[in-house]
Amino acid sequence: MPYELYYWDGLQGRGEFVRLALEDAQAPYVDIGRGGEDEDEGERQAAMMAVLNSKTEPMIPFAPPFLKDGDLIVSQTANILLYLGPKLGLAPDTNLRYVVHGLQLTIADMVTEVHDTHHPIASGQYYEEQKVPAKTRATDFLEHRLPKFMRYFERVLAQNPHGDRHLVGDSLTYVDLSMFQLIEGLHYAFPRATARFASRYPRLAALRKAVGARPYIAAYLASERRLPFNETGIFRHYPELDAAAH
Amino acid sequence: MPYELYYWDGLQGRGEFVRLALEDAQAPYVDIGRGGEDEDEGERQAAMMAVLNSKTEPMIPFAPPFLKDGDLIVSQTANILLYLGPKLGLAPDTNLRYVVHGLQLTIADMVTEVHDTHHPIASGQYYEEQKVPAKTRATDFLEHRLPKFMRYFERVLAQNPHGDRHLVGDSLTYVDLSMFQLIEGLHYAFPRATARFASRYPRLAALRKAVGARPYIAAYLASERRLPFNETGIFRHYPELDAAAH
Repeated sequence: MPYELYYWDGLQGRGEFVRLALEDAQAPYVDIGRGGEDEDEGERQAAMMAVLNSKTEPMIPFAPPFLKDGDLIVSQTANILLYLGPKLGLAPDTNLRYVVHGLQLTIADMVTEVHDTHHPIASGQYYEEQKVPAKTRATDFLEHRLPKFMRYFERVLAQNPHGDRHLVGDSLTYVDLSMFQLIEGLHYAFPRATARFASRYPRLAALRKAVGARPYIAAYLASERRLPFNETGIFRHYPELDAAAH
Repeated sequence: MPYELYYWDGLQGRGEFVRLALEDAQAPYVDIGRGGEDEDEGERQAAMMAVLNSKTEPMIPFAPPFLKDGDLIVSQTANILLYLGPKLGLAPDTNLRYVVHGLQLTIADMVTEVHDTHHPIASGQYYEEQKVPAKTRATDFLEHRLPKFMRYFERVLAQNPHGDRHLVGDSLTYVDLSMFQLIEGLHYAFPRATARFASRYPRLAALRKAVGARPYIAAYLASERRLPFNETGIFRHYPELDAAAH
């Protein structure tokens, strides 16, 4: 039975971190929220909302994405990857799996901070209603938080005793795929602030390139399954939130 | 060898979620950041900073708390609990452990949102520098986010097929302990907004009471090891951010 991934249609969002792992491993999965071409948006989301609003389901998630594997429902992006990692051959079977997961949770923290650059006040309100604090928060993010996170991840690569090609151990894990997505998203959202990314973080830039060149990832990125980044996702390109032009 | 918990001194913070699990299980641990009475603050933090700033350590954490167990370093609060859970008898050994972890990550998300009620703009700046957006964010949090999270957790208890005494399965797990801490913190930070908590969320209120009455938890709470909540932690009581008095 294929894995069932439940997520919103029309955006990459947090679901994309899961998709990259499933695609790289060529695992059979159904992207439930995207549904069939003959369904309208309400129908495509109906199955997801039925789980979220269930009055009887014992494992209700707080929010998408969540994964169904038979009767089991796994919620939270990083938790889904924790669950899938060993099954997809994308996680070590030693205690290093906790190191992989710790890094994944740090990526999740940074993703939340990226989200809050455009929604610093209320996730339920439009960006346009919080543009002023968004600019202040985005400025702080680009000046302080982005360099702090990226210097850290660059150090993780540099200090990997198995070499700087992977974040953990001597082979690809799901957190390498997620790091690709994070870096892609940062470039989309903040092209000016990331203009010198490759010279500042050469190991991370090399990792991004290597992941993007993996055959199944490259095929996925070129497919219709890969939605483009857009302004309903986490990584939004609002030029006024980016660094100033030089 | 005892577990080594590395965290800031002087506040409960995210380290407290780990302490509650270690204390309930009566596991041997050293609270490294608190150090000995004869050390000054710099000395107490030196061991932690040495790990964070190491140029050679392969498993460097981004931030505290982190746990050392022999050579292994586990970072991120929820990940530490994932690791400790089975060792401390506080996690199921079935796939339900992913359900426990998904709930723990949802608590972590809410904790971040609580933090951001007093730091909506920049975690590196003082609350006093962001009081105006903090009030807007705290208002949204209390009106929308807190009820959304708490209604969800109450449903998780109600829909547990093993009964509503625990969030997952038929016995205590680490996420029950963390839920206690979350509810305690919300009452400390927002006494007016939580005044009717027990009538709105009776199952969560009962869980809070049951956890607080566990012998080793009660002993811990009465000990000097339990620092009081204060305004350097995550849950801060700034009366101006609480709901209006009725």
